[in-house]
Amino acid sequence: MRLSRYFLPTLKENPAEAQIVSHRLMLRAGLVRQSAAGIYSWLPLGLAVLKNIEQIIREEQNRAGAVELLMPTIQSADLWRESNRYDDYGKEMLRITDRHDRELLFGPTNEELVTDIFRSAIKSYKDLPLNLYHIQWKFRDEIRPRFGVMRGREFLMKDAYSFDIDKEGARQAYNKMFIAYLRTFACMGLKAIPMAADTGPIGGDMSHEFIVLAETGESEVFCHRDLVAMDPPGADVDYEADLQPMIDDRTRLYAATDELHDEKQFLQIPEADRLTARGIEVGHIFYFGTKYSKAMNAVVTGADGKDVPVEMGSYGIGVSRLVGGIIEASHDDDGIIWPDSVAPFAVGLINLKTGDAETDQACESVYARLTARGVSVLYDDTQERAGAKFSQMDLIGLPWQLIVGPRGLKAGVVELKRRQSGEREEMSIDAAINKLAG
Amino acid sequence: MRLSRYFLPTLKENPAEAQIVSHRLMLRAGLVRQSAAGIYSWLPLGLAVLKNIEQIIREEQNRAGAVELLMPTIQSADLWRESNRYDDYGKEMLRITDRHDRELLFGPTNEELVTDIFRSAIKSYKDLPLNLYHIQWKFRDEIRPRFGVMRGREFLMKDAYSFDIDKEGARQAYNKMFIAYLRTFACMGLKAIPMAADTGPIGGDMSHEFIVLAETGESEVFCHRDLVAMDPPGADVDYEADLQPMIDDRTRLYAATDELHDEKQFLQIPEADRLTARGIEVGHIFYFGTKYSKAMNAVVTGADGKDVPVEMGSYGIGVSRLVGGIIEASHDDDGIIWPDSVAPFAVGLINLKTGDAETDQACESVYARLTARGVSVLYDDTQERAGAKFSQMDLIGLPWQLIVGPRGLKAGVVELKRRQSGEREEMSIDAAINKLAG
Repeated sequence: MRLSRYFLPTLKENPAEAQIVSHRLMLRAGLVRQSAAGIYSWLPLGLAVLKNIEQIIREEQNRAGAVELLMPTIQSADLWRESNRYDDYGKEMLRITDRHDRELLFGPTNEELVTDIFRSAIKSYKDLPLNLYHIQWKFRDEIRPRFGVMRGREFLMKDAYSFDIDKEGARQAYNKMFIAYLRTFACMGLKAIPMAADTGPIGGDMSHEFIVLAETGESEVFCHRDLVAMDPPGADVDYEADLQPMIDDRTRLYAATDELHDEKQFLQIPEADRLTARGIEVGHIFYFGTKYSKAMNAVVTGADGKDVPVEMGSYGIGVSRLVGGIIEASHDDDGIIWPDSVAPFAVGLINLKTGDAETDQACESVYARLTARGVSVLYDDTQERAGAKFSQMDLIGLPWQLIVGPRGLKAGVVELKRRQSGEREEMSIDAAINKLAG
Repeated sequence: MRLSRYFLPTLKENPAEAQIVSHRLMLRAGLVRQSAAGIYSWLPLGLAVLKNIEQIIREEQNRAGAVELLMPTIQSADLWRESNRYDDYGKEMLRITDRHDRELLFGPTNEELVTDIFRSAIKSYKDLPLNLYHIQWKFRDEIRPRFGVMRGREFLMKDAYSFDIDKEGARQAYNKMFIAYLRTFACMGLKAIPMAADTGPIGGDMSHEFIVLAETGESEVFCHRDLVAMDPPGADVDYEADLQPMIDDRTRLYAATDELHDEKQFLQIPEADRLTARGIEVGHIFYFGTKYSKAMNAVVTGADGKDVPVEMGSYGIGVSRLVGGIIEASHDDDGIIWPDSVAPFAVGLINLKTGDAETDQACESVYARLTARGVSVLYDDTQERAGAKFSQMDLIGLPWQLIVGPRGLKAGVVELKRRQSGEREEMSIDAAINKLAG
């Protein structure tokens, strides 16, 4: 993409309304623009990141056997009356009345709707296990939306719902998502620690939050250092095997958010192994058994011919929140540092002297060759001065910068800079292309 | 994907509520499920088609130089007051009040919001031309939603908005989208005819609808037969060149929907060239100049240093509606016939005797080999009898069926069926794989 034909409205000044670093950088780097309190437009660069995150989540959900569908944003109030949550949910639910005075709502979560889809289609244990997920915009009418996309009102979420004939199956479904989540966050360059959690308005018997460690995180967390050192499950994990030992490895060590923190227990860890850090919640999984299936009469016939309410769990990842979360975990004073897997472009190509025939030609050639080899490039072909181009490229945080100017070209070299380390290296154009496309 | 692990709730009976063939087939083939009047959940097979359509649209928009962003579904009423459309829009607009009694709405279209984004960022003619598009769910509170996704309330739309310094630029922007639309629909296997149109609630000076021909289409259309015979623009179309001659070629011949039909003019066409047919509107483009930019003070500084309101157009494609439109244009008594480019899977692999070791093994091998070569396969590994498998595969309309049974395997052959023509051919497994992966 040529910057001259792109839409990248970066800001030179820090916006006054942004209290946390991810919010500040998302506005400054032209990722989002607020259109109403807690409601954002995703500008092209922000959307590219959002889509990369979405795709990583999708691949890991599919790998774990979950099946994607897409439920609508608007739901009927009647469904929520069946589960008795319509009145319970409170003012966070955006309630809507249509032209025929029917009560609707903008879905804050989808347990009711997915249970309705399930009960209309599945009648036998033979069709289980089943895990249905979708990635859809949701709305929670936060009383005080703040921190940009970290606590917005309209937000993108991946929510999965598992259906099993018995508790044992439901446990396996829960474990699959547990492992898939560890993999998902690791693929984004994040260190996520599972922590036992309250079940809140979803309800249920068992629940874990996934907390990403970030110096500027929203809340304090406490855990054993070994949890941080532990490798994520590999891509070859067998989701049909018994996953319980892997789960046990990751839940027997102490880990707690400040809400559930037990200082006494924490102090039993040897001091050198105690970690107090800051974190951001990016995922939450729940096992709630028959809470919704009983209320909504979602039953399946078992092998013994008897009808039983289906055992359920739900599994959420804050997709849009992750964009902020990744920035909190990966930035410096100059701007964002995108992990390669989610970066909106892999390379920022900087033309140091747009208008100079030789430099333009070299840049065009590099741009074409990289693009042909499948490398995504943002080519700064604008008339801005070099200093402004450097600052903007650092601000938007693409993993690599390839700097092409007349002086280097005379010596037969271009400069390659790694955003994360700041390391710079001069090399021939061919060497740079091979390194980036390798 | 193994059917035994998928979620494909097909129906044996025709649903009573479906009046048109696409609605009937979408429900029967398990593509969608209605969750409230005019509001649908997209089941896995339907979502796969929707995503393929979306991707074709995205590629052609990008090719034409449009830049993707994503605006939220919920908008502030205040923006619509600036353009004076808040009161004008009527009851089709879903109006919402939040917990702080602020007036919001679920966006039925985005002229105001995109103009607001534009005016906050772009100040100079040097940053033009610009065309911003997004693919997002919209809501129109139809008084009588019907015909499934063809006239639903929550629907997916691609809407693009062009910004230019003058009328000439705006004309070029309009022409680019005109050409991109012809290509887009052709890529989906559709024959789309551009027809002059009323501008309706969007307003403006020039407008074309794109009408897909389908025997069961919603409305009557009239045009010169040469328009139908005309080839779509190639992938090598130069969007920077003057596109007017290509547009003129496609607009000088008579073409009109029944709303704007002029029988006198139509009768001037030689009788053999007159075509009266049925069609479905799938796209609509508008040039409306400064209607919104003036009202919302979206000005840019020209080369002469003077501020002028920016010239705008908007360009819509009904993404979810196209799923129905394609079915209307491509089906038979047995079910849907997906064009290859939008098919949810390329191949349906039918195991004629699940449980028979040799047949299972052959199917597993074919499934693995096709998948490894990038062919998407839905593998019917269920215990259903052969007849039921055949009907279901015809119903869901995958372009190819690969039928594997014990008798054929003994003779060293499998059967390959083309859904569209019904042609069947016996061949070796290797030959079938090479044909499908070729």
